Formats: sequence, C-alpha cells, structure tokens
Amino acid sequence: MLTRFAVAPSGFKESLSAQAAADAIAAGVRRVVPDAEVDLIPLVDGGEGTARALASATGGRLVALPATGPLGEPVGTHFALLGSGAGSGLGSADTAVVEMAAVAGLSLVPHGLRDPGATTTYGVGELIRAALDTGVRRILVGCGDSGTSDGGAGALQALGARLLDEDGFELPYGGRELTRLHHIDPKGLDPRLAHTELLVACNPYNVLCGERGVARVFGPQKGATPAQVEELSAGLENWAYVLTRDLPVTCDLYGGPGTGASGGLGAGLAALGARLLPRFEVLLDHLDLDARLARADLVLTAEGALDHQTPRGKVPAEVARRAKLNGRPVLALAGTLGEGAHTVPGVDAFTGILPAPMALAEALLRASELLTDATERALRMILLGAGLPRGAGV
Amino acid sequence: MLTRFAVAPSGFKESLSAQAAADAIAAGVRRVVPDAEVDLIPLVDGGEGTARALASATGGRLVALPATGPLGEPVGTHFALLGSGAGSGLGSADTAVVEMAAVAGLSLVPHGLRDPGATTTYGVGELIRAALDTGVRRILVGCGDSGTSDGGAGALQALGARLLDEDGFELPYGGRELTRLHHIDPKGLDPRLAHTELLVACNPYNVLCGERGVARVFGPQKGATPAQVEELSAGLENWAYVLTRDLPVTCDLYGGPGTGASGGLGAGLAALGARLLPRFEVLLDHLDLDARLARADLVLTAEGALDHQTPRGKVPAEVARRAKLNGRPVLALAGTLGEGAHTVPGVDAFTGILPAPMALAEALLRASELLTDATERALRMILLGAGLPRGAGV
Repeated sequence: MLTRFAVAPSGFKESLSAQAAADAIAAGVRRVVPDAEVDLIPLVDGGEGTARALASATGGRLVALPATGPLGEPVGTHFALLGSGAGSGLGSADTAVVEMAAVAGLSLVPHGLRDPGATTTYGVGELIRAALDTGVRRILVGCGDSGTSDGGAGALQALGARLLDEDGFELPYGGRELTRLHHIDPKGLDPRLAHTELLVACNPYNVLCGERGVARVFGPQKGATPAQVEELSAGLENWAYVLTRDLPVTCDLYGGPGTGASGGLGAGLAALGARLLPRFEVLLDHLDLDARLARADLVLTAEGALDHQTPRGKVPAEVARRAKLNGRPVLALAGTLGEGAHTVPGVDAFTGILPAPMALAEALLRASELLTDATERALRMILLGAGLPRGAGV
Repeated sequence: MLTRFAVAPSGFKESLSAQAAADAIAAGVRRVVPDAEVDLIPLVDGGEGTARALASATGGRLVALPATGPLGEPVGTHFALLGSGAGSGLGSADTAVVEMAAVAGLSLVPHGLRDPGATTTYGVGELIRAALDTGVRRILVGCGDSGTSDGGAGALQALGARLLDEDGFELPYGGRELTRLHHIDPKGLDPRLAHTELLVACNPYNVLCGERGVARVFGPQKGATPAQVEELSAGLENWAYVLTRDLPVTCDLYGGPGTGASGGLGAGLAALGARLLPRFEVLLDHLDLDARLARADLVLTAEGALDHQTPRGKVPAEVARRAKLNGRPVLALAGTLGEGAHTVPGVDAFTGILPAPMALAEALLRASELLTDATERALRMILLGAGLPRGAGV
C-alpha cells in the first residue's frame, strides 16, 4: 500500500531551496501515484531559509531590518518571531530566530570578493540586539551557509564587547585580525543577554580548532588559500584562548561540539553563555516531524550529496533515523552519490538524479526537473517491487 | 519473491560487451540477493560479437581466416559454424554465421581514417565464399556496427559480380564510386549462391534511400561530412537503380525494411536473393530466449542509451516485449536516458547508472563499475517496494 508520502528533503546547495526540492519530489510522486497524499516537509538545517521556514511553520512572522553585511556594507535582512501554531518541544512563543546566513551568509559575498579573512559577523550581533529589543525570552541562532571565519568576533563587537590589540585599539572586522587580539573588554556587553536564553542550532561535528577545525575544513570553500587557512587557524586559536581567559567561559571553546559552527560563531556565542545544540534537535521539533513521518507509507528525503558526510549530521541521516523510530521505509535521492552513500543508517534505498553524462553546472540548473524525473523512476521501481508475488524468497 | 533473475543486456557501445554488461549487472544483483539464481543472457544484435556468441550458445565453432578489411588491407577475421546444442526455430546445424563487423566494422577503421566513402565490404563477400566452401546449407549474415557505406558493392565483387563504369572498367572500392556505376555483369557470381539459403539479420528500420536513408542517418557517425552524405546518398540511389535493372530483383531495394542495414549491405545481399529478416527474430531463437525469460522473477535488460530509438528495434524493447508475453516484470538500465525513455512498451521501471555529474569519457571508462552500483541501487528500491505492506492502495 503506497498512498501517504512524507517528502522531507534538505535544500540542494546552489540550486534548490528545501521547499523547491520538496515540490519537485512531490511532482514526481504524483506522476506515478496521482492520488497520493503528499506531506511536504521541507527541512531546514539552520542555514539559508531557516528563519522564514520556522516562521511559516509556527504561524509567526519575519521582522525586516537593515544590518551590516559580511563585507561591512549595509544589507536588507530579517529575523523571525515564532508563533505558537505548531511545534512543541521548546515552545515557540517568545522565541526569535536569528539566521546567521541572512546577514553573514556566503551567498552575500560576491564570488570575486570571497576572502574569509575579511568578512564579519557584526550583523549577527545586530540582529540579536534587534531581537532583544522585541522582548523575547529566547533567541535561537541558526548556523550554516556562512561566509565568515571570524569566530563570531563581529557579533560580540556588535553586542558591546571591545576586542583590543596590544596598543588598546579596537580590532577591525575579519578573522585575519584575531591573531592580533590582546584582550577583551566585556563591560559594554548588552545587559539583556544575562536574562535571555541564547540557543545556537549547529552541526555538532563542527569544531573551532585543531586538525578538523573550521578553518581547515571549510576555509577553502569560502575562498581561503592554504596560507590563509593557516592564518585563520592561528587566529581562531588565539580567539579561543583570549575568550576563555577574559570571559566567564565554562566550556571547551577549542574543540567542543559546535564551536566551529559558521566560521566559529558557535564559539563566540558560547563564550557569552549560549548553549550550542545539535541543530536538528532544536529545529525539527517546530515542524512536528516525528509524528508526520510516522503517518507515511514511504518517507522520501534528499540532499545535494549523499556520501560519508551524510551520517555526520546531515538531513537525510536525521530523517532516516527518525523514520526508523516508527519503522517507516526511507528512500533518499541526491544529485551526487559519493563514497559511503550506501552506509547511511536507516536509508533503505537511494538513487542519483542524473539521466546522462552532464557537467555539474548543467545539473545545478536543471535540478528541479531532474529531481522530479528521478523520483518518478524510483517510484516505478518501488511499485515494480510492490507488485511482485509474495513467496518464500526475499 | 525475488530469486531468479534473467540478465539480458545489449553491449554498451564503446565501453562494454554484452557479456561484460551481463557480468556487471549480475554482480549488482548478488550484492543485494546473495543467493540469487542469475541467468546470464548477453544479447547480440547482429553486430560485434554475434558470431562468437552464437557459436558459443549452440556449441558450434569459429573458423579463423584472413580477409580484406574495410580499408582494403588484410585483416584476421572469422565466421561461425553453428552447432546443434541449443536453439530451435531455424535449426542451427548446417548454418554459418558471417558477422559483417568482424571484417568491415567501424572499429576496424582507425579514427583518423574514417571516410565512409572509401571503405568496402569486400571482406564480407570473401567470408560468404569461405562459408560456402564448408558446404553449409544456410548462411546468416549479421549486420550492425559497420564501418562501410558501399551498399554491399564490395561483397558482390568478392562473390564474382563485375561492377562497371561507363567505359567498362571495374569500379574500385568504396561507396563514393557508386555514382559512376553504369552496369553490372553478374555472370561470374558464385553459382553455389543459387542453392544456399542466405539470410540477413538486420534492423528493419534501416532503409537504403530517401530522407531516412542510411547515408543520412548513419553517415555522420561513420565520419562523413555533409557533402559526403549527399554524395553517398546519390551513389546508393544509383546502386539500387542499377541492381534492380541488371539483376533478377523482386523486392524494393530503395526503401524495403533492412535494405539500409550496415551501410546498405542489406540491399546488396537482397539483390542476390537474400532474405532480410528482423535481427531479433533470426538471432534470439538460438539463445532459447523466451523460455529463459519466462522462468525469471525479474528480467533486467540494459543498453548504452534508452530513448525514443529504443522501441525502433533495440535490445531492451525486444527483451521487454518477449518478457511481457509471459507477464514478467522488466527493469531497464542505461548509461544515458534520453527523450522517450519512459515510453518503451513493456519496461516497468528504468534507471540511469550515473552517480554524479561526470563527462561521457569517464562514464565510458567506468561503465562496468557504474552498472554494478546502479543495479544494486535499483534492486534495493525494488526490495523496498516488495517489503511494503499490501493493502487497498496502489
């Protein structure tokens, strides 16, 4: 019996939003099962689209405002005030969602200007201040898709901390300045932070320092040269050292889970007392995900790539894990199947979306159409299986 | 129940023989169903590998000999004498198989020398003579993968016909000479042809002349420029005219089914009284195909491409048609899914084999591995479906 489908994809980086991916998959489902009941659950991971999606899912609203972009220029941005329409867990009311990508995301940095040593999270601090102005009791900061590598230094500056060099001068924007950080003067920090719950939704596999530190793992995709990667690594190490010494820090800023989130923003906010939480635990409860997966005959999930990274905190792995709590079968689709794609726990079957040899650029452009066609093909294979006579064999 | 698999692929042009494709698919099946009973049925379409495959399937043998290659150089080649081991239909004993690709195939013409105006089927006539020498009662000529466009003129010369120009001089090799053909002197034709059954296994969709004529459809892939295509078309039209006038021809050499097979070899042999037969009807009976498909829980077929050409006489369409005579489910795999892939009658489900964006050259190199992986993924989707609860839905 194949009637109710839960379609719970991530976005496809640089081509499809989660909503567009869900729509494309649903179209493929309906080609094969015209009267399918399709529950669209576009998933957010803290990055681009998170504030909008959570506002929509909870019946909340977006607050638009100008703030400082990653290159120091003013940009139009927004944060979300959640409603109490859906979700449970944390409770949505009195909660603001600040999406770092909306003010310091990589897509706000033109390709020709990608220098992660120069970009700042100053706007993230401004959004947090604006959220504090609304009187919420809880601020949830979504990490992901960042264009910065400043450890959240800009955010702390916007919130009133002074980051000073040896001569007592304030540091300018950018992760590359952090090697010159001498001490932090926290006296000017916004006093409202002390009685507001600050939560950070992050991938716990991202850490600030060391061999798997954020500068080494993500620096190159943000545009850093090998020499810049080393400079940024050294700066973030100094950042963790000075934060730990000058602020009342009780956690491990160097290697704690999530400290490396969004170019180290996790560490900076943790130094202010924020709790770094695995992103899906804090985000997906707002979507009532478990109950919706439990109602499906088949769960479809998707992401741009399915590979050995998938089990390390990616959407398809989380969807499969939750679907399996209720014994639901899971099909995963991906633009690129890499090494390890077949080892994602809970994924019963998976498929790529490419019909023919083609370059990545073409696949990105045609992602929606390719995803619909691939869903149709996959459903036909599943129906072929569903139509086989039952017997003593497999 | 999914235990018995019939694996009946075509070869993948320029990358996998039918046998290699069958092996790759079987490996993917066994990854999912380790104790599967896999019946390997690599299919031949008259082109490369046909003589060898039919000799093997019937317990016959190959006869090796030198003959004239497509460029007029001597090449080592072979024909087959079928045994009576398997097969029914035509009966295998007393039958020789001449594979035109083994002596005049495109792969015998180096890329730099591809000029379909110059190549000859002379060697095909030599192989037919050699087969006549063995005393067989029936000669089956397999078409496909040809490197020639001479209408079979060379084959007729090798069998004793004289092709003469206006001044009574014999035409040299090559399709481009056919515009100069003035008349044919058939007196020297091998007299044994008169009491030997000559069958040609060809794609009936290939015709000699007109808008869909062989020079226009296949000339470019054999290396012809647009001007050469026109020259070859004109030559083949003259060829059909003179053949019809000077030999006791009773069929339509211009547009009859199969007349365009192998650069028009079909027409040349038809002028000698050969019967042009749809290739699968004449070839697949030797493989006992229908009975083997009927025993399978699932039929897997494959070809390099699945598209609007597939129903026009390609292996997956033929396998699906025959499988459906016994109500067997059919899965098709292909390196490239083109327009029309979803409209092949009898194919219940199909999938591409590409895991990620890649160039055609890489896909060709890695075809075996990609086909195995794709088969595994497809089987997992089918098993997912087989495991769904049965109910009132789909």
